[in-house]
Amino acid sequence: MKLATLRTDGTTRAVRLDGDVLVDLGVPDVGTLLAQDDWAERAAAATPGDATTYALDGAEYAPVVPQPSKVVCVGLNYRNHIQEMGRDLPEHPTLFAKFADALIGAGDDILRPDETDQFDWEAELAVVVGKRVRRARGAEAEQAIAGFTVLNDITCRDWQFRTREWLQGKMWDSSTPIGPYLVTPDELPGGVRPALDVRLTVDGEVMQSDTTADLLFDPVALVEYVSTIVRLNPGDIIATGTPGGVGHARKPGRYLLGGETVVTEIEGIGRLENRVVKEKAV
Amino acid sequence: MKLATLRTDGTTRAVRLDGDVLVDLGVPDVGTLLAQDDWAERAAAATPGDATTYALDGAEYAPVVPQPSKVVCVGLNYRNHIQEMGRDLPEHPTLFAKFADALIGAGDDILRPDETDQFDWEAELAVVVGKRVRRARGAEAEQAIAGFTVLNDITCRDWQFRTREWLQGKMWDSSTPIGPYLVTPDELPGGVRPALDVRLTVDGEVMQSDTTADLLFDPVALVEYVSTIVRLNPGDIIATGTPGGVGHARKPGRYLLGGETVVTEIEGIGRLENRVVKEKAV
Repeated sequence: MKLATLRTDGTTRAVRLDGDVLVDLGVPDVGTLLAQDDWAERAAAATPGDATTYALDGAEYAPVVPQPSKVVCVGLNYRNHIQEMGRDLPEHPTLFAKFADALIGAGDDILRPDETDQFDWEAELAVVVGKRVRRARGAEAEQAIAGFTVLNDITCRDWQFRTREWLQGKMWDSSTPIGPYLVTPDELPGGVRPALDVRLTVDGEVMQSDTTADLLFDPVALVEYVSTIVRLNPGDIIATGTPGGVGHARKPGRYLLGGETVVTEIEGIGRLENRVVKEKAV
Repeated sequence: MKLATLRTDGTTRAVRLDGDVLVDLGVPDVGTLLAQDDWAERAAAATPGDATTYALDGAEYAPVVPQPSKVVCVGLNYRNHIQEMGRDLPEHPTLFAKFADALIGAGDDILRPDETDQFDWEAELAVVVGKRVRRARGAEAEQAIAGFTVLNDITCRDWQFRTREWLQGKMWDSSTPIGPYLVTPDELPGGVRPALDVRLTVDGEVMQSDTTADLLFDPVALVEYVSTIVRLNPGDIIATGTPGGVGHARKPGRYLLGGETVVTEIEGIGRLENRVVKEKAV
């Protein structure tokens, strides 16, 4: 199944993609849907005959989960990228946070704050949690994964490196597109450990290109690790890290100045297409 | 005013302290109260004659804001402590995050996870936001402060230093007491820049003792800084950092093993009293 949160008539609706229509699932967003124990059955049962439908063409997407209780992001996690940087493979995942107020929809403009000179991209596979779990292991961790989506972990590098903690470069308001779809693992090669091409372009130029099969800590391992520390709730997001090719690592550095179109795409999951727009500091 | 979120009959209620009773404010918690533009007038207007009251004696407190949209924490921020560590005063505050699932009430047990050997304390003054603001400056930042509360930023030091990001030592489930009261600035010497004794004891032994007047980045400066990056919403929390005296900085290190009582107190604001209880890993 492919699920999304659609913007319509000044509100939002959770929908399932069915051919060339989006079928209303009776709740306002995918987060609310996932909070129901039988979300998968409910979503599968909704049919275009019985429920409201919306045209796929021209659909406008909200963040696939608009208000996750947590967004946990992973630092260096692509083997190739770690090794090309000459680093040893880490024993533990590096974790940092975002808050829900950073999230925007798959086609929304990315606001480039006036306060940064180093506005950068990071294409990422994101896990969407479908069950409340704590200290999940093995099959329980696998079953806690509702599906996957695409996230662009837009970062103000100058703020990221102002202090020793990255958070202030990572939590800028309305900076982080996520969506458009949550795709359930049964639709993906590799299932809960999907092996998919991930790619990011700026104005058509390929900046990042890798495969999610290269993840050092795979989605199941990350659910196990994070849920050791804190409960995971339905709708929570784990962003699994980005491959090589970010602007800051280039010589010279390449940054988003405003006016560019950034496309972040994971094969079989979805595509974010966002214009970078200079924010007026107010 | 002193406001709290009271546990009663399996639910919670926002209350105002009035002499030796707690007056019901008509909403389930202080976060819901603060989301109303006229929260201060509403809270002031509730009187024991017209509203339900609860006995102060035996009151059980939930986290003062149970579900803040963000908890932003500040690293090194006490001048004395920075200087005694031989460091230069930083130009920018160091920020890291917690999620709401870490929060517990003022008298709740602190769960000590089986996975840590370095379970430590951090007494902190916490700002509670009362207005939605972005890029607030000066008077707007001052007016965005609903009041202050007490927080103990319990930390698993071994997990904090596993990787270069602190988050995984800081976001343990049900680890962080906050409360019992939100105290409005008009009740405090120094107002929105309060000058108050902050103190933490473990089984009666004084571990931390300082004054919030020593903060390098004061509450107003922190609201300005954080709101530059991301909107602040009513109920959001900014934990302002801890003074010297944490267990990890002692020679040899002192850690919480389970069975201790930790008291965190800020003069005029309130007192957290928490037993440390070994959590059974499940």
